[in-house]
Amino acid sequence: IMISQASSEHSICFVIQSKDIPAAREALDMEFAPELAVNKIDKIEVKSNLAIIAAVGDNMAGHPGISGKLFKAIGENSINIIAIAQGSSERNVSLVVHEVDAVKAVNVIHSAFYLSHRVSHVFIIGAGNIGSTLLEQMRGELDELFMKHGLLIRVCGIATLERMVIDDQGIDLDNWQSTLSESTQPVNLDVLLQQIKELKLQNSILVDVTASDDVAGRYVDFLNAGIHIVTPNKRANTMRQEFYNKLKLLTQDHRLHYLYETTVGAGLPLISTIQDLVQSGDDILQIEGIFSGTLGYIFSALSPQNKFSDIVRRAYENGFTEPDPRDDLSGTDVARKILILAREIGLQMELEDVQVEPLLPESLAAGSLEEFWRNLPALDAEFEEKRAAAETQGRLLRYMASLKNGRCQVGITAVLREHVLSRADGADNIIRITTKRYFDNPMTVQGPGAGREVTAGGIFANIINLSFHLP
Amino acid sequence: IMISQASSEHSICFVIQSKDIPAAREALDMEFAPELAVNKIDKIEVKSNLAIIAAVGDNMAGHPGISGKLFKAIGENSINIIAIAQGSSERNVSLVVHEVDAVKAVNVIHSAFYLSHRVSHVFIIGAGNIGSTLLEQMRGELDELFMKHGLLIRVCGIATLERMVIDDQGIDLDNWQSTLSESTQPVNLDVLLQQIKELKLQNSILVDVTASDDVAGRYVDFLNAGIHIVTPNKRANTMRQEFYNKLKLLTQDHRLHYLYETTVGAGLPLISTIQDLVQSGDDILQIEGIFSGTLGYIFSALSPQNKFSDIVRRAYENGFTEPDPRDDLSGTDVARKILILAREIGLQMELEDVQVEPLLPESLAAGSLEEFWRNLPALDAEFEEKRAAAETQGRLLRYMASLKNGRCQVGITAVLREHVLSRADGADNIIRITTKRYFDNPMTVQGPGAGREVTAGGIFANIINLSFHLP
Repeated sequence: IMISQASSEHSICFVIQSKDIPAAREALDMEFAPELAVNKIDKIEVKSNLAIIAAVGDNMAGHPGISGKLFKAIGENSINIIAIAQGSSERNVSLVVHEVDAVKAVNVIHSAFYLSHRVSHVFIIGAGNIGSTLLEQMRGELDELFMKHGLLIRVCGIATLERMVIDDQGIDLDNWQSTLSESTQPVNLDVLLQQIKELKLQNSILVDVTASDDVAGRYVDFLNAGIHIVTPNKRANTMRQEFYNKLKLLTQDHRLHYLYETTVGAGLPLISTIQDLVQSGDDILQIEGIFSGTLGYIFSALSPQNKFSDIVRRAYENGFTEPDPRDDLSGTDVARKILILAREIGLQMELEDVQVEPLLPESLAAGSLEEFWRNLPALDAEFEEKRAAAETQGRLLRYMASLKNGRCQVGITAVLREHVLSRADGADNIIRITTKRYFDNPMTVQGPGAGREVTAGGIFANIINLSFHLP
Repeated sequence: IMISQASSEHSICFVIQSKDIPAAREALDMEFAPELAVNKIDKIEVKSNLAIIAAVGDNMAGHPGISGKLFKAIGENSINIIAIAQGSSERNVSLVVHEVDAVKAVNVIHSAFYLSHRVSHVFIIGAGNIGSTLLEQMRGELDELFMKHGLLIRVCGIATLERMVIDDQGIDLDNWQSTLSESTQPVNLDVLLQQIKELKLQNSILVDVTASDDVAGRYVDFLNAGIHIVTPNKRANTMRQEFYNKLKLLTQDHRLHYLYETTVGAGLPLISTIQDLVQSGDDILQIEGIFSGTLGYIFSALSPQNKFSDIVRRAYENGFTEPDPRDDLSGTDVARKILILAREIGLQMELEDVQVEPLLPESLAAGSLEEFWRNLPALDAEFEEKRAAAETQGRLLRYMASLKNGRCQVGITAVLREHVLSRADGADNIIRITTKRYFDNPMTVQGPGAGREVTAGGIFANIINLSFHLP
């Protein structure tokens, strides 16, 4: 039914129906007995359980690119091709594949030729506040993205600390909670990675919505498996410089994308803007800003009537702080953010190279949460004193991070009332970028730098942009 | 040397050396004489001037994707494949192509397999202020982009009003001016398009750095030819809605990219941010801002000491305005920008639907430039009166554009001193975006929204981002 002998090959192959195998084998053995005897022919081999897939069409003749599309689709879906034949009539390209791959191969070819949409497959780790908001946003928008932009995004996996669910046909987002809660599959990153690999789906994207070191530490393995990564998790980019460099190198070598816009300023356009400036040859001279909504809120509320400890307590009670407010007050989170930006502009440095002025004395940083709340008012007088001193100079206290001359600093600063950073209202982030091109008038971005809706929206935007650009 | 018979084909083809053609022909004619006589075989056809290209390697066996890469590279470079054979040993894929395509095919396959870099080819129309700054920035950065990110961007064409130069090997950016000035090729968009098509280069990008209606009107033809577009030219997006919709549809159908970040706010991250918000399901409730550096400068300089006409004159003398300052003062440029944003969020509207409050009375809008300068001081009293009236209410005059409830308005507004738009310093643009997610605290972006360095940088960033994501 099909014959193929590639040039320079010392073999010739042809495809026949299974029922004809014994007869063909006998005929060949007989015909080539002399050649086989003197080893002019090495062996006659029969491969079974194969299928021929033929793409047929008169218009294929003289149309470059058809076979490219065909073989690309087959290859990207990890289907092995055993033999190929296209005769010079150019009306038929035939492939031989394993029988088990036949249906998949036909589907893959169909979608390559008949559908103009792009497809990507998303695996989400973490379904807490932000993860579940992301899933809710996706539930509302995926249909519209498909209808309006021909973009088909499928959530094919959701994993939490306890369990995970994987479905290559896409999980129904109307009831992902129950689907997940019914799952009996415990979470194991090795198993998850292995399963994603085995699915061999086109355009797989890992979305890490945890704050976990463990998950971040495995990005290398996911990238090596050809999986793109989108994340708000600051951990990977603030681990050792060596690890960061490895991630960057892997994404380049494998032509993968690793997107983390929401690690700094949530949905505000910061990292992409800085990348654009750096790559187009601008020099970033200075970045300064308020990168913590919680600390922004606390410092903009300070006044003779509003004691530091009361404000912290109020922020805590309104859910603006971490469960342990010291996680915000330590300044480490801000330090991570400025480090991420520093590495983005090409500086090689570690988290401990960021100079952090702690907001709390050591006595308060340690100990139980109760002790912390009991001892916090002891700081009120000191903060009011600092605030008043700043005021007499027309200044306001802000917890600021800055990056200048290759150095990163985080701490309390008294800024002039006219200074751009004094404009931060409530929990706003405000970031000013001074560059060679934006010198006399720097670029300023202001807005909420945290919150489940804006953070999830930023992650979703990363997923959409990536999906738009994937093959 | 090679045999191929695709399944279901009623033909069989084999490849032999040219010198053997007469003998083979004779042998076949003789052997098949009976079948030919009764039309069991239609004809025996000889195709000449062909070449076999064989990709050979032991490791190809069992590696899905190799043929995909191979045929994709061939197809993308518009090389026609006449026959294919891959025997089941999977160590050799052979293609038959026209002899004239043989060298190109081998090169193409080499670069597909041996180089990990991405390649894109840029054709720039317009080499004025911004175009030449863009070329200067590219000259400085292309090497670094290649070294650091494996991104090979080649400028293969430059066209001005007078002449153009095209070179598929890339124009040397160290002396593009002299190369261009030596060119004797007159500019003709049809010829340019035809030449880009004929070059059949992978990932071609048209960069339109003109403000021309003619060029913008041809985007459809470029997209139809498979060419991506990057532009700061506001014209295409402010032509009839129908044309805009067609551009959007074409980019989707052909999976092309049409990027115009710099049409509003130059290098400030506005359009991409709005796209991110819209696509991820946020609702844009309001956009308000100062979109003209020139008008921003004029209004922030108004004071009892600074007369309107003097400020306009100073702006003109410092090169902050168009050659005819009335182009800035008419408000049309601002109207175009708010229309671009309105369409971005899905509104269907025409330029004349934007309500524009003109800055100049009709008497000044018409007539010669000299008359304009002579009559301009007549407006001073009126502007000072408006300014003073606003001041008594604690307000400042600003030339503002806003988009709300499906309507676009452009005109003079008296904003409160505390209002975010009062913060615009000098020629800054400042834009505030209020959305469902950014409701209590809207997102604000501020910085220079014009200028050759920042505009060229924004265009360059669009080119780089696009190139990073192309196959």
